[in-house]
Amino acid sequence: MHLALLLIDEGQGVSLPVALLLIFGTAKLFAELFQYLRQPAIVGEILAGVILGPAVLAWVKPDEIVLLLAELGVMFLLFRVGLEVRPGDLFRVGGRAIIVAVGGVILPFLAGWLILSAYGEPRIEAVFTGAALVATSVGITARVLSEKGLLDQQSSRIILAAAVFDDILGLVLLAVVSSVAKGSVNILQLATTAALAIGFTVLVALVGSRAVRGVITRAEGRLHAGEVQFNLALIVLFGLAAAAAELGVAAIIGAFLAGMALSETVDQRVHDLAQGVTELLVPFFLVNIGLGLDLRLFADLGLLKISLVILLAAVLSKLVGCGLGALSLGWKPAFQVGVGMIPRGEVGMVVAQLGLSLGVISQRNYAIVVFMAVLTTVIAPPLLNLAFRGVPRGPATPVHSIG
Amino acid sequence: MHLALLLIDEGQGVSLPVALLLIFGTAKLFAELFQYLRQPAIVGEILAGVILGPAVLAWVKPDEIVLLLAELGVMFLLFRVGLEVRPGDLFRVGGRAIIVAVGGVILPFLAGWLILSAYGEPRIEAVFTGAALVATSVGITARVLSEKGLLDQQSSRIILAAAVFDDILGLVLLAVVSSVAKGSVNILQLATTAALAIGFTVLVALVGSRAVRGVITRAEGRLHAGEVQFNLALIVLFGLAAAAAELGVAAIIGAFLAGMALSETVDQRVHDLAQGVTELLVPFFLVNIGLGLDLRLFADLGLLKISLVILLAAVLSKLVGCGLGALSLGWKPAFQVGVGMIPRGEVGMVVAQLGLSLGVISQRNYAIVVFMAVLTTVIAPPLLNLAFRGVPRGPATPVHSIG
Repeated sequence: MHLALLLIDEGQGVSLPVALLLIFGTAKLFAELFQYLRQPAIVGEILAGVILGPAVLAWVKPDEIVLLLAELGVMFLLFRVGLEVRPGDLFRVGGRAIIVAVGGVILPFLAGWLILSAYGEPRIEAVFTGAALVATSVGITARVLSEKGLLDQQSSRIILAAAVFDDILGLVLLAVVSSVAKGSVNILQLATTAALAIGFTVLVALVGSRAVRGVITRAEGRLHAGEVQFNLALIVLFGLAAAAAELGVAAIIGAFLAGMALSETVDQRVHDLAQGVTELLVPFFLVNIGLGLDLRLFADLGLLKISLVILLAAVLSKLVGCGLGALSLGWKPAFQVGVGMIPRGEVGMVVAQLGLSLGVISQRNYAIVVFMAVLTTVIAPPLLNLAFRGVPRGPATPVHSIG
Repeated sequence: MHLALLLIDEGQGVSLPVALLLIFGTAKLFAELFQYLRQPAIVGEILAGVILGPAVLAWVKPDEIVLLLAELGVMFLLFRVGLEVRPGDLFRVGGRAIIVAVGGVILPFLAGWLILSAYGEPRIEAVFTGAALVATSVGITARVLSEKGLLDQQSSRIILAAAVFDDILGLVLLAVVSSVAKGSVNILQLATTAALAIGFTVLVALVGSRAVRGVITRAEGRLHAGEVQFNLALIVLFGLAAAAAELGVAAIIGAFLAGMALSETVDQRVHDLAQGVTELLVPFFLVNIGLGLDLRLFADLGLLKISLVILLAAVLSKLVGCGLGALSLGWKPAFQVGVGMIPRGEVGMVVAQLGLSLGVISQRNYAIVVFMAVLTTVIAPPLLNLAFRGVPRGPATPVHSIG
């Protein structure tokens, strides 16, 4: 039953528990180290990935199995966050969240496009890289906010709602850019993609909570095998994540909507059981982000320079683009929202990988995007701590953790 | 972020959430159906695998990713069971458990060897198949006993302790048989294998509990990142599972020992969080067992006949071999212990796969072993219910489940 999970020294597989020990143990070691240095633990876990990965030790290769645990981890993370959010709370900030999301899509896209054009890149290359700058990785922000007991803040709700819209807008933008890259723009198909994504999200957000309550209340009396409520919750989770994935929206958006739909129905026990899965798997999600980085490429100083310019643009364009939409609440909430939307994490990398597979992004620009994705993710948590300094905090979502 | 997890119609990959929904949902559907028919839910989940797999629908292929979730699942299952067992309770039954394990290794091995020889199979083939009949898959029994609140019974403790010895004896036997198959018997190496396996188990069982308590008590005051106790418990789990796997003992034995070492130290919260992971992953372990079965092979009536003979021998040899060792306690406990050791599950299949890879087991005998492994696993839970009928039950380990 041994699986070749890691390739240490190219070709030597190790057993699954050794791989788990190495990845999980290193992540937690760095989390503790960073807490000790009064830095965010989450940044430590991403850096554990950088160190285990090709950038430094090259002990762990980002393979299918690490990716599976990472993907499951971020799904459960968003599910867990959704469980803490009542649909009504998000609706109340919906209008503002749309403005935040739109600003946070347009500015980064234009910034990436224009900067790469200025560096003389071909148009399709510049446009696609711009698209890779768009999508926010809400998992990172959600993790920080839930750990600090800040999910009830108005800015936190705006960030979560805006992340949902951001994902839909990013999907539509990516569909447009991909069809331009393939040379076949089909307006009808693009409109269908957009309509399905929006329809699904609105439908689940509006009636999901009531539908889920009806099903679970009725089913609970009749079902008997094991942890009935948790099992039903998992089926809702997988079902909505699957629907979202099939419609082209990210699976994690489906997972978040599933958690939100369940938030008013399930017992504390479901929160606790989901928390167990989250605690186990999220380190793999964080390590996997760090694994993406390969610093060897930056021996090329020119590449490093463009990368830093793109990184700066990625940070500022979200800060300004999203912050503007929340400015009517005051400077501080605007800053909180802007900072919360900065991390690109795994989403930026996935877009860049799509570009590679379509042949419209060069290895060079791929490296730039990955650098931007990892660094925005590492920068965001300390900025979030700064932005929420002095804000009164509720209980942290994971009951035992320390805010 | 889509993974090609399942091969539906050979080659069409589906997204991860769709695969999770299909496997988890079908498993739970069959669990409910079987509960409704007053049959063990666990058998329903294994049959879900038979139906999803090559035997019936061929929708799900037993690939690397299902295997990963299955392997993680059984690791957490044994960890979870270990958390409910105090080392002292196992030591008290240790002597009897050794006798039970020895009887339950010798009889199945001889039965398999002799029957296949009687059918005219070559000696190495017969010997290896005999070895595949030896190892008990304690996960199945542990799941049934914990769900029914029967872990505190003396027979349950004997079963758990005997399973540990069974695994060590099975390891040594497999090492002997493999080296015979490779034509190079190295007594020193075999003795080292045995000594390391026994040394590791005894050491962990004896001092593990105290060592773990010392480490966790000291670390807890100093560490701050997230669910400290659960994270430390996971590191102990992965560490002992890794050590066990590296020494050639099954990773699940390490997982069980880790749970047992932690059982006197950790809070209820660690039980709950581990329970979440177990509930999510165990269905994949059960489905994966069912996936192994390919009924098409049994169009050959001769093959079906030998398979049924081997199945009968597999059931009776454990029932008698293990039951005899517990007979001094009375007929009923002896029957309980014997039945509890019947399921071979994934362990039998792994041995048969090793035989295939060494070229000492034919496809025909491989099919016989897989048939025996799946069927013993399906037969055991109803027999366990019968054996423990009328026994007063404690609370089920998963708090919400119904015994």
